[in-house]
Amino acid sequence: MAPRVSADQARREQMVTERVVDSFEQAPPRLRELMQALVRHAHAFVRETRLTEAEWEAAIGFLHRAGEISTEERSEFILISDVLGISMQTVGVNNPPRDGATEATVLGPFFLDDAPEVPLGGDTAQSAPGEPAWVHGTVTDTAGQPIPGARLEIWQADESGLYDVQYTDGRTAGRACLFADEGGAYRFWAVTPGAYPIPTDGPIGGLLEASGRLPMRPAHLHFMVSAPGYRKLITHIFVEGDGYLTKDAVFGVKESLIKDFVRHKAGEPTPDGREVPDTWTEAGFQIVLVPEDGS
Amino acid sequence: MAPRVSADQARREQMVTERVVDSFEQAPPRLRELMQALVRHAHAFVRETRLTEAEWEAAIGFLHRAGEISTEERSEFILISDVLGISMQTVGVNNPPRDGATEATVLGPFFLDDAPEVPLGGDTAQSAPGEPAWVHGTVTDTAGQPIPGARLEIWQADESGLYDVQYTDGRTAGRACLFADEGGAYRFWAVTPGAYPIPTDGPIGGLLEASGRLPMRPAHLHFMVSAPGYRKLITHIFVEGDGYLTKDAVFGVKESLIKDFVRHKAGEPTPDGREVPDTWTEAGFQIVLVPEDGS
Repeated sequence: MAPRVSADQARREQMVTERVVDSFEQAPPRLRELMQALVRHAHAFVRETRLTEAEWEAAIGFLHRAGEISTEERSEFILISDVLGISMQTVGVNNPPRDGATEATVLGPFFLDDAPEVPLGGDTAQSAPGEPAWVHGTVTDTAGQPIPGARLEIWQADESGLYDVQYTDGRTAGRACLFADEGGAYRFWAVTPGAYPIPTDGPIGGLLEASGRLPMRPAHLHFMVSAPGYRKLITHIFVEGDGYLTKDAVFGVKESLIKDFVRHKAGEPTPDGREVPDTWTEAGFQIVLVPEDGS
Repeated sequence: MAPRVSADQARREQMVTERVVDSFEQAPPRLRELMQALVRHAHAFVRETRLTEAEWEAAIGFLHRAGEISTEERSEFILISDVLGISMQTVGVNNPPRDGATEATVLGPFFLDDAPEVPLGGDTAQSAPGEPAWVHGTVTDTAGQPIPGARLEIWQADESGLYDVQYTDGRTAGRACLFADEGGAYRFWAVTPGAYPIPTDGPIGGLLEASGRLPMRPAHLHFMVSAPGYRKLITHIFVEGDGYLTKDAVFGVKESLIKDFVRHKAGEPTPDGREVPDTWTEAGFQIVLVPEDGS
């Protein structure tokens, strides 16, 4: 969009940008590249929109409030990045589809790296309430060869849409790590995920509301899968039929990641003989990793 | 800069941007315009620079630390905006030069709106230490007509480069308001400003250091001038001969705002008969305001 200003004014504005760009000339190459691109885009944003001083003040206030509400376990800045699709764009730039490899999606703000280990076939949900879900598949490379012992980190919201870090009692639930077997196969119990709103008590909640956007995320189960010699995969699987699949507040849905969570009747025998008094679901997810040197 | 990617990948990345842009389609017109421009530029930044996931994490950490160090009286987010020239670009967009009006510059993070009033010719410095400076001029409109009773807010750093909000004892000094006389003339005592570094104990200090940029601001005295029917003017005057005039960390210097602070010998009589035992300086600053409906 061309600024609606005189040629003289446009030249003056361009000179401000160039002066700031030049100030990063002595930075190390990659930092220089990043800062100069950031400056050019930030200035172009101000010039194109003819940002008013009151709007600039509102933006500063927004960031200030984002800082105030952020804690060690809750980053409003990740939410801002997620809701503006910056996170998904970064995921896409760094994880182009290749050779049938499993697609990546956003990490989100709820991952913790010290989740407890459970045995293969164990329960990742622990005390997280919800309908049991049996999830299984095989981890292979792009040539279809199984990857024995691949490490899987699983985390999810419970049936109320809460992650354990949102519980008030500090307990760990709905997150665990486990290892695939010698044939790359894995299986575990979780709970059937449910849709939930991202936290709306900070400034990003106000932005979504003012914009007429929903804060909802479709139901999903997080995976982080790693094995020596392969690129770490960060992804989710989504639940087929979820009403929010086309309205994900963070734009994380990819067609290939939507899975059928088949519902079984109460009392139907489970794959591992676990006694489940009520209904349970079952979903398969084949995971394909890319070699580390694959580009 | 064209991304170094396949046409397929470029199309996929463009689709992510379009999906996020579309999500703001229902926002009120101005919010929609701002958010869609912000999304397009933020995504273009990620795509052009091929931002890595580690760099994204570093950016989130930077913002998180900016939030942590910010308080009611110190906004690291204003500093970020200043140091990236976003503040000056916003000032320039909203205050194009016209009809000889005085040029605007950045507000900075140190303005407070409850400064004490001093009489015309009074001392704005109060207990702020430094060499006395006699500052005077006339407030007129762009036709040269005086503006009687124009309000002037003055604030500045003392000879050590500290604003009163940076003092540990909470006292008010180096800030005051006063009113021009019936002929638009004004005069007051301040202290000769000195150059100083912007606060470097937050993440912006680290960015400047990593980029090989100085944190210094050339010596300056802040003015905010207002009168009914005129656009509020926010500006500084700078001290001629200051070594940092071409290296201002926030890009605020304009040629027309550099003034000669003429130094007088110790004991030389002052314009208002004040006894000054040591040297003192004197600077003139003619202020021209734009009518509120001037565009």
